[in-house]
Amino acid sequence: MTPAFEKLQQALKRLPGVGYRSAERIALHLLVEKPGRLPELVAALEEAARIVRRCARCGNLAEGELCAVCADARRDQGVVCVVEHTPDLVAMERSGAYKGVYHVLHGRLSPINGVGPDDLNWGALRGRIEDGEVRELILALGNDVEGEATCHFITQQLASEGTAGAAVKVSRIGFGLPSGGGVLYADAVTLRSALEGRRDYS
Amino acid sequence: MTPAFEKLQQALKRLPGVGYRSAERIALHLLVEKPGRLPELVAALEEAARIVRRCARCGNLAEGELCAVCADARRDQGVVCVVEHTPDLVAMERSGAYKGVYHVLHGRLSPINGVGPDDLNWGALRGRIEDGEVRELILALGNDVEGEATCHFITQQLASEGTAGAAVKVSRIGFGLPSGGGVLYADAVTLRSALEGRRDYS
Repeated sequence: MTPAFEKLQQALKRLPGVGYRSAERIALHLLVEKPGRLPELVAALEEAARIVRRCARCGNLAEGELCAVCADARRDQGVVCVVEHTPDLVAMERSGAYKGVYHVLHGRLSPINGVGPDDLNWGALRGRIEDGEVRELILALGNDVEGEATCHFITQQLASEGTAGAAVKVSRIGFGLPSGGGVLYADAVTLRSALEGRRDYS
Repeated sequence: MTPAFEKLQQALKRLPGVGYRSAERIALHLLVEKPGRLPELVAALEEAARIVRRCARCGNLAEGELCAVCADARRDQGVVCVVEHTPDLVAMERSGAYKGVYHVLHGRLSPINGVGPDDLNWGALRGRIEDGEVRELILALGNDVEGEATCHFITQQLASEGTAGAAVKVSRIGFGLPSGGGVLYADAVTLRSALEGRRDYS
């Protein structure tokens, strides 16, 4: 095809879940089949890039000062679920199981990759704790080494915060078998987590 | 999420092969994970929309007057493969089996959908035939009702072209079992085509 076509195909191929063949299909769609959708897509991309920013309180996507969750009076502002990235928050919201608010760290501690506390959205969370705004902290971070390190760091920091930090109840989300998944198919780490996280059943 | 985010997600969801969940993933990717790729993508889209046009001769994607195939002196300009859409041409090129040139009709005859000869890129093909440029025509159109009707129309038109039309050798691509597919898995129409298209084997 033409150089500009191939450049577009390359740009599309860098998107998650889009391979070489789908990029070709999308480029043909936008240039040949439905050329009217190309300016629509460009407008949507540019509008989102211009308008969407980080929530000043929690780091979630927002259009105003606060995101929809932080601005929602029906959400329990005293319960804060700490997640690594915005997609984690989206998944949590999709579950419909959570009525508190969030804090997006935009990463996790990773000394070998040079990611320290200052690279995370941690200062804002400490601010929320110092303000006495937070009653409960739910750590929804992975149980790999970096997730563990980040959880450890947060609890340490809470202890050093004095009264405000000590008053916060901290929990971590449960690990174990995914719903619908049998023991047969679970990996060793998941089974270990499931055993450790067993509950009284009587 | 935010209204601008959802608008972007909707625009992405209209792309072929992109569902609700992938659109969300791509939008998060472009707004949160790799915001630097968003202007790159917008630039590639805008550049392609500005530069890419139809080849004046065959209707393929082009950046100049002619597309890369028509401008290639090593291609046999006397053999023209007639395809319905640009993706068909791309698939044909991918096969590496074809050394002639193309003509993209940008559709096929469909009286019930109100698509007549004037809605297709047919005038340009007739012009090429009248110019005596075409020695052989390979009809690479589907074998459904509309594909049949389009092939029938083209051969009829050739007959009425007089000497230039009558001199053109016309063939139609073979139909039958796809490579790697067994008789067991083939549908009835494919098997009928395969029987009709059988070749002497001795």
